[in-house]
This record gives sequence, structure tokens and C-alpha cells, in this order.
Amino acid sequence: MGLIDENTSGVFVISVTPFDEQGAIDWQSLDRVTDFYFEAGADGLTILGMMGEAPKMTQSEALEISRRVIARAGNRPVVVGVSAPGLAALRELSMAAMDMGAAGVMVAPPGSLQTDTQIHGYYGQVVKTLGPDIPVVLQDFPLATKVVISDEVLARIINDFPSIKMLKHEDWPGLQKITKIRQAEAAGQRRISILCGNGGGFLAEEMARGADGAMTGFGYPEMMVQIARLMTAGEKDRAHDLFDAYLPLIRYESQPGLGLAVRKHVLARRGAIASPALRAPGSGLTAAAAAEVDYLISRQERRLKELG
Amino acid sequence: MGLIDENTSGVFVISVTPFDEQGAIDWQSLDRVTDFYFEAGADGLTILGMMGEAPKMTQSEALEISRRVIARAGNRPVVVGVSAPGLAALRELSMAAMDMGAAGVMVAPPGSLQTDTQIHGYYGQVVKTLGPDIPVVLQDFPLATKVVISDEVLARIINDFPSIKMLKHEDWPGLQKITKIRQAEAAGQRRISILCGNGGGFLAEEMARGADGAMTGFGYPEMMVQIARLMTAGEKDRAHDLFDAYLPLIRYESQPGLGLAVRKHVLARRGAIASPALRAPGSGLTAAAAAEVDYLISRQERRLKELG
Amino acid sequence: MGLIDENTSGVFVISVTPFDEQGAIDWQSLDRVTDFYFEAGADGLTILGMMGEAPKMTQSEALEISRRVIARAGNRPVVVGVSAPGLAALRELSMAAMDMGAAGVMVAPPGSLQTDTQIHGYYGQVVKTLGPDIPVVLQDFPLATKVVISDEVLARIINDFPSIKMLKHEDWPGLQKITKIRQAEAAGQRRISILCGNGGGFLAEEMARGADGAMTGFGYPEMMVQIARLMTAGEKDRAHDLFDAYLPLIRYESQPGLGLAVRKHVLARRGAIASPALRAPGSGLTAAAAAEVDYLISRQERRLKELG
Amino acid sequence: MGLIDENTSGVFVISVTPFDEQGAIDWQSLDRVTDFYFEAGADGLTILGMMGEAPKMTQSEALEISRRVIARAGNRPVVVGVSAPGLAALRELSMAAMDMGAAGVMVAPPGSLQTDTQIHGYYGQVVKTLGPDIPVVLQDFPLATKVVISDEVLARIINDFPSIKMLKHEDWPGLQKITKIRQAEAAGQRRISILCGNGGGFLAEEMARGADGAMTGFGYPEMMVQIARLMTAGEKDRAHDLFDAYLPLIRYESQPGLGLAVRKHVLARRGAIASPALRAPGSGLTAAAAAEVDYLISRQERRLKELG
Repeated sequence: MGLIDENTSGVFVISVTPFDEQGAIDWQSLDRVTDFYFEAGADGLTILGMMGEAPKMTQSEALEISRRVIARAGNRPVVVGVSAPGLAALRELSMAAMDMGAAGVMVAPPGSLQTDTQIHGYYGQVVKTLGPDIPVVLQDFPLATKVVISDEVLARIINDFPSIKMLKHEDWPGLQKITKIRQAEAAGQRRISILCGNGGGFLAEEMARGADGAMTGFGYPEMMVQIARLMTAGEKDRAHDLFDAYLPLIRYESQPGLGLAVRKHVLARRGAIASPALRAPGSGLTAAAAAEVDYLISRQERRLKELG
Repeated sequence: MGLIDENTSGVFVISVTPFDEQGAIDWQSLDRVTDFYFEAGADGLTILGMMGEAPKMTQSEALEISRRVIARAGNRPVVVGVSAPGLAALRELSMAAMDMGAAGVMVAPPGSLQTDTQIHGYYGQVVKTLGPDIPVVLQDFPLATKVVISDEVLARIINDFPSIKMLKHEDWPGLQKITKIRQAEAAGQRRISILCGNGGGFLAEEMARGADGAMTGFGYPEMMVQIARLMTAGEKDRAHDLFDAYLPLIRYESQPGLGLAVRKHVLARRGAIASPALRAPGSGLTAAAAAEVDYLISRQERRLKELG
Repeated sequence: MGLIDENTSGVFVISVTPFDEQGAIDWQSLDRVTDFYFEAGADGLTILGMMGEAPKMTQSEALEISRRVIARAGNRPVVVGVSAPGLAALRELSMAAMDMGAAGVMVAPPGSLQTDTQIHGYYGQVVKTLGPDIPVVLQDFPLATKVVISDEVLARIINDFPSIKMLKHEDWPGLQKITKIRQAEAAGQRRISILCGNGGGFLAEEMARGADGAMTGFGYPEMMVQIARLMTAGEKDRAHDLFDAYLPLIRYESQPGLGLAVRKHVLARRGAIASPALRAPGSGLTAAAAAEVDYLISRQERRLKELG
Repeated sequence: MGLIDENTSGVFVISVTPFDEQGAIDWQSLDRVTDFYFEAGADGLTILGMMGEAPKMTQSEALEISRRVIARAGNRPVVVGVSAPGLAALRELSMAAMDMGAAGVMVAPPGSLQTDTQIHGYYGQVVKTLGPDIPVVLQDFPLATKVVISDEVLARIINDFPSIKMLKHEDWPGLQKITKIRQAEAAGQRRISILCGNGGGFLAEEMARGADGAMTGFGYPEMMVQIARLMTAGEKDRAHDLFDAYLPLIRYESQPGLGLAVRKHVLARRGAIASPALRAPGSGLTAAAAAEVDYLISRQERRLKELG
């Protein structure tokens, strides 16, 4: 399998980790959802992200998930989330995943970082720990990490650490950040791949600003695939038409904390996983929420039919 | 003018404060936007909220804004945001606003509160400071305040402080919180009015869960008014049809920090205020963002026409 | 009265604001404690700081306190804390205080600032708002403000905003920050006065690293005065002997939140203020805590006698 | 080895983890410092705490450290810190450590907890995950964890989860919290052991309020041992005399972040570990800081000699 690089584009779906009702990993469903994502048109997968419930795994479970998904993906790229409280655990998982054939590793900043210098220093430590050859995805997700990465420090990180090949962009608001990076590149800064997150809620605008695609999840990953293709093809109006049809559900799934239960509800409904269960302390949808989601899905299906 | 109470319903628009390009309050535009909101069907207004740029005012400006809007509103209710770093300033503005004819005051929790006991204690202090006769709106907006108010402490506050008549609901996710309150009321808890915020992004679901309406802002306040009416009339499908037409812009306006610039851009475009300027340190839209908004508006107008 | 500048040195005591048991400002005690501080050897005062309960004042109270203390201080310098949620209120108080004869104003960063760029931008806004002629003290107190100011952004602020004349240093740990500033000055950076806070708990080490004195409070302000003089005179061992005698109480007073009640208890015991009351929502010492403080004072008195 | 219970008292030293200059665990030094702590009079040890650099270990390193120290400690109790981002990793280390003969496990709340209900719920999940037979130490350290545990929620946790046998108390201020717990016990609440942290900076007062001893670290652990014994023996004045002699260094070591480098500097100076190195991203003392520490030690030695 190849490695991600600064020109990687398309849609990398953030994969869920399926569990059974007792909280054990459901390996059959893991295979099935891996296939499901690729059948929906995914260019790659990212496993063990926040929405993959990564912090709830033991290290040995994380390794086994990596092994299984990378094997199943065949020659298609799989990025492995390796964020950990310390560099030793981060290194251990990264080295193992790359040995298994991962396309790169994703690192979010720990919540203890408070200044530009600390953020820059942390990614310096990560790159020194991993060596120059492992492609790193920087996950920029302040709503979840509490770490705000300014345009300035991001430029310094890009400049100083060439093995950081990709930005998983989920700052919010974040459109201007994309524009600033592309402007800096026009002025000579090293290119970086930008794949966008936040459930695809701004995907059309993000691509118009210069993003290369999406790295995020949604119960209907084909939405991201189609919008990325339409925007790449210059079909902005059609991209927005399609986006608008999915938006009520995107909005509902974007609720922090609750969103993963929504996503797993949809995936289970669609047969991609056997159970919508989250591992504790996560919990599923209330009946009222499930009914709201199902209502939105019925409207979405009708609207998609209207669009043809 | 009457006071808000536990049965208040409908749409209270969170009013912007218009400035000229130098950052001075534009009093003519303040009158105009006040009229604009009522012409759009608002049942009341809330001034000096976060999106009214309240923390940027001097106390004397806050008093003058209150006087002007309350007078302009005539016999329609105006709630005044009085959140302040200390109780003395909060009291001073509250007393003056009520003397001018305000319908109630709105209080968000200061960011220093960290435990249930502290949150409960703070609202106890507020109520003791204001006396039993001033109706208080509790603003529950964790994304902005960093204070998370659990169902349990909210129930204790409702139980202990009868002058808290209304919840400005903008927890996110927050639908289950509404359900819990209404369930508690069914079991005997004192009723409280619930008007929802967050730009109306979940208004239809919120009303289905038992909310009494909206207290929030949006460049097209008639959206809130129509959805509240349709939901009250039991026209759920039509409410969602209309909501979906506005949703792409609601989403765009919901970007933290940036949202107010979007809202003022729209209001200025519509002639409700003379200038989209924010008072420093706020800033306006980039050309790229303004173009994105204008594109969304053109699509919105087309979609609304299709809906008839 | 003169203005503070980049060479200001000595001890500026952070003044308490005395209240009566009902929470009203005790103007007689305010005069008395002003005199008390100067009799203890203070070179200046800083009023309306956090430990002066500034956020609990109305703007008119803040103005009246400023007027009274500045008048009482005669030709000795008084710095006025002007931190506020917005620039308009900050400007209003600053202008009035300078007109009354203040020696400068002190500004802490609002808790909403998250990146180096935002921190730098905020002080740029403050300086633009106040104009180039008002000397500004930058209060660097992350434990209270939650804003961490790195060495790098502090250097940029010093470089870009010449009217920032002084650092109220209370980062913790903070000794290396002083060393870095003095090293930068040796390499050509503009000089800035550094007065240290945190109740004097590291005053001897801070002055050895290059600080110019203290700007903080303590029930025995003569401690700061004597240590500053001894360190200036090169009497390090004697400074530490004296410091160690006061340290048990310094430690006890350093407890966040509780510390001000300790300080007012001591000041009331010493007759500098009539009542130890804090304005609500602050509260006084429990009987157990008061007994602990009194025990420490009796030991301190004995130890000071031993030292001669 | 026996288990800790609600009557455990004395001093459990928070053990450092020694590294060589390359960041590898120094197993010989781990044995040596284990012996050193017991020779200083420790009643037990706590390993893999924050100051044991626990988050920097891989899971296999954590297991090997546990095995080594528990074996070395013989029949003396060793508590193992098992805080982890998720319950699965927490369970894995807990079960292994208890199998090796640990006396209990210590769990700090994750920084994501924001309400009383969430805090209570988290410890409920922990206890459910570990089963009823593993004694749990609740680490209450808001300065580091950002989670504030109110008296009220602590009482609910004590009441609902009997396997939580001990509070590692390091709230600050925290004296009143001890008093409240002991008062609640007098009124019938289940007893809990309280061992205090924060480097021993309030140990005498804490024991006077009802604490059972200390669970913390310091370069001179014999200080904690002696003060705990003197306070237990009712020798309050002598306890304070001794405490005051150590206080200048306690204060210096209490600097967040820097404190561990100070502690390792002292332990290396005393021969308890070979190198003062911290594992990355930690770093050692500057020359200036090392000189300050050495100066304080020389004064401390003189003062202890004076006390006899």
C-alpha cells in the first residue's frame, strides 16, 4: 500500500469501530463496514480516530483493529489515529501500524498545550519520535481538543516538519484557514494536503477554498464522495443541490457526543454494522432521537429522489 | 409593557446593536432594526445579548440602548441582557431597565463557575440581588460560557428560585434537556418557559420536544416566526420544508465568532441596518465569505419560491 | 503625580477594597488602608485589581474609589486596574483615572484569548484604544485568567507596543520568564519594568533574576518592602531569613479564592480596615481557618523577634 | 501484601520513575529509590502517578514497573496509578497490577468531565469496570485535572461506591473539604481514608483537620514521615517547626511542571536515583534553578541543625 503525501486527495472516511451489545469488538462488522465504505466510493479510510472510539481501546485492541482493516483494505490506503497521552505509546502504535502497511498516522494535539510555542514544540517531538519517513496527519479539531492552532503556528509547523503531509481540517470556523494556507503556498510555502472534517458540513465551500477532499464520517459516506467529485469537476450548483438534501441529517449528526450514536444508528439501519452499540461510557439514541433521525432519513430519501 | 412569565411563548429575536464604521452606535439603525424585527413577526425582543455585542458597551451606552428600544417597542416585550462580571453592575442595569419598562432580564453564568453547587449558588445570588419580582431568563449556552448546566442542577434552580421564569435554551446537544424538563413538569415541577437559541438550527425538533418558541437571531427572523407558528399549528412537514430552505444559511451563520458578521451582512443587505460593522475587536466578512453568503441567499430565494 | 515608566521599581501594594458587613464600600477604611500601605513603606499602590474585588464594582464605584485613593496618595503613584469585558468600558475608566492623576493603568487579558496572535492582537487593540501616552501594566496571571503568555509573544508585545511599560509578573512557574526578558534586553530589546505578584512567594528569587520589585498584596506589606530593599542592597541571606519567617503565612494566604479572606482577616486584626468582609459572592474565613491564621501569626511574631 | 482500606494511614510516597539520559527506564535506580523511600520511613508507595510520569509509559512499561516495585516492596503496600483515557486500558492495568499484589489502584477523573452528574457517573463506570473487590483511591487534583469535585458530589460518590476506600486529597484550597468529610462521617457517612498531596505544603493543617497522612512526593520524604508522626502524637508545635524548615524548598518544588525536575534534582543529589533526567517532553533544571535549589538546601540543612 502506498503512503499518503502532500497531494493526496479524495475522501478518507473516518471509520467507526463496531461493538456488540456487551462492548466487545464485532470483527465481522468491522470487515463489513470496511467494505461498505469502499463500496460507497471512499478513496481511503482513517481508523482509530475520535469517532472510532480510539481512546476506549487497549493498545492490543488498537493493534488488532489496525491489522484487520489494513488487510481488508488491500491496496487502498488506511491512516491510523495514534494520538496518545505520551510519546512512547504513540510511537509504539505508529511503528506497528506502519509495519502492517498503514498509509500514515494521525496525531491530534493533547489538551495540555496552551501556547504557539508549546503546539509547535509538540509536533516537533512527534516528528522526532517517529523519524522523518512516517507521513503524519495533523488533526486540527479545537472543539474536541481545546487546542486552537493559529494560522501562524500552523505555517511554522508546515515549514519546520516536512513529514507532516496532511491537515485534517476541522477548525470551526475554518474556511479562511484553508484560504490562508493556499495563499501561503502560492507565495512559496510547502504544499500540504487538506482533507476536511466536521461531518462534511462545509465540504462544498471547503473545496472551493482549496481543500483536497474530506476526511470525516457520516452515515451516508457517498455524500462526501459525490460532493468531492462534483466540486472537483466544477459542478458547484449540483454539489450544493446534493449537499442541501443531506444537510438536515448532517446537522443532526453534528451534535457533539450524540453524533456518533446517530451515525451508528444509521449505519446499523443500512446494514453496514450489526449493532449501533457504543462502548461504555458511550450510549445509544433515545427513542425520541431515533424517531427524529428516521424522519429526517425519510425526508432525505424523498428529496434525493426529486433531485434524480 | 407586561412581564414575561412561565407561559411566555413565540419568538423573541436577539437584536443586533448597529454601529457605524467608526464603532459608534447608530441610533437610527437601532430604531430601524427594532421595527424590522417586529415587522417580521417577532413577539418580543432581547437586547444586549452576546450577539448584541453587550460586553463591548459602556454601562451608560447599555442604559441608552435599553431606553431607546423599550420606547420604540411600545407595548411589546423587551428582555434586557444584564450579564456582568459582578452582581453590583448586574443589579444596576437590571433595576434601570425594569424601571424603563423591560419585560425581564437575562443572565448567563460567569465562566468561573465549575460545580453544580457553584452554579446553583450563583443564581441564588442573582435572585437575592434582584429581589423576587424581576423575571429572570437563564441563558444556558455552554459553547460560549464554558459552563455546563446539568439537568439535575437546572431542576434545583427551577425549584428554588421562582423568579426564574424562562430558559434561553442553547445547550448543544440539547433536545433531551427539553424533554427532561417537560417530563419533570408532568411529575409536578414548576413550569418554565423554554425559548430556544443557537440560531434556530434545531427549532422544529425543539418545539416538538416541548419548547415554547425561539429566542435567537438570524438574518431572516421571519424563518423563526413561521416555523414556530407551523409547529404550534401541528404542521410539522411544512415546518421542515421551510426550515430546510433556510438551513444552508443557518448553518453558515452558526459559525462561532464569524456568525455575527454574517448576520449583520444579511441585515445590512436587507436594509435593516445601515452598516454591517461590528465594534472592535470584531471584524466583518472577507470578500470570499461575503460571496459565499450571497450565493447561499440566491439559492435560498429560489428554494423559497419553489415552496410557494 | 508622575507616571510609571520602564524603570519604575520598588513595591506597589495591591490594595484591598474595604466593605462593611452589608457590602457597602467603607470609605473611611479605604483612607486608612491607603495610609497603612504607605506607612508600611509602599512606593505606590495598585487599586481595582482582582484582589481589590474590582469586578464586583459598578463603574461609578470604580471611579469614586480611584478619585479617593489618588487624592489620598498625594504625589505617590497609583496604578488603576481597568480590565473589563470590552474596550469601551476599559477606555472610559482609563481616561477618567488618568484625568484624576493615576500613574498608569493595568490590563489583564480576557479569558477568551487562545492563541499568541489573539493575545498580541488584544494588547494592540488596548494600546490603540488608549492612545500612546497612557502607561500600561500588562498583568500576566495565568492561574486566574487562564491565558498563558509565552516568552515569544511577550517579546512581540514589548517590541510592538511602547506604551506597555511594566509587567505585573505572576506566571507560575515564572522565574525563567524574568531571566529571558532580561537576556533579551541585554541583546537589545526595549527595557520593561517587572514587578512581581503572587503574594510575594518568590520575591527574593525574582529580584535575583532581575525583577524591579513587587506589585502584590499580603497582610504584612512591610515584608515585601524589606525584602525588596535587602535584595537591592545585595543582602540575599538576610532577605531569605526574613522571607522564611513570613513564608508560612504567605503560603496560607496564597490559597486561590480563600486568600483574600485571609488577607482581610489580617488587615482587620491589624486595624488597617474596620471589617474583614468581602462583597458577595465572596465570604469570610471559617472559625477553623481563622484559628489557623492566628496560630501562624503568633509563630511569625516569635520568629521575627528571634531574627531581631 | 494487604490491601488499603478506609483506615489506612501514614505516608505513601508518590514514587518518581527514574530514566537515563536517553529516556530509557533505569531499573537499578527504580530499585534504589524504592528502597530509599522505605528507608525514609514510608508506609507505602504509589507508583505511576502524574509525578511518576505515568502518561509517558507504554502499557508494557507500566506493567513492568508495577511488577518490579511490588516485588521490591515485599509485604509493604504499593498503590498503582491506572488513570487512562478509556476504561478498557484502565481495567487491563488494574487487573494485572492487582494480580501482582498491588494494594489498590488510583484513578484521577478525565478532563472531559464537566458536571457533578458526569463525575459521579464516571466513578460509577470505574467501579463497575473493576468490580467490587479492588480498592480504589480517588485522586482529587483540580489544578492538574481541571475537574472540580464539590463536597456534594464527593459525598454521593462515597455513599454509592463502597470500593472507593481512599481520597488522595489535593484540592487547593482544600482544608475545609477535609473538615466537611469528617463532619459527614460524624453524622453517619461511611469512613474514607484521606491522604494528602500537593507536596505536603499543608500537611500539618491537613492532619489537624482530620487527614490520615500523606500521599505525595518531595525530595525529602522523611519530612512527610516526621510531620505525620508528630501530628499523630499531638506535637503540633514541633511539627510546624520542622515543617517551616522544609517549607522554602517545598514551595520551590510546588511549581507546576517544574516541580518534578526539582524533585529529581534533589533525589539525584542524594543518591537515590542515578540521573535527574525526565522522559521527553519533560526537561531538567536550568543552571540558575539548580543553583537556587542548592542554596535552599544549604539553608535547610543549617536550619534543621539548629532545630536539633
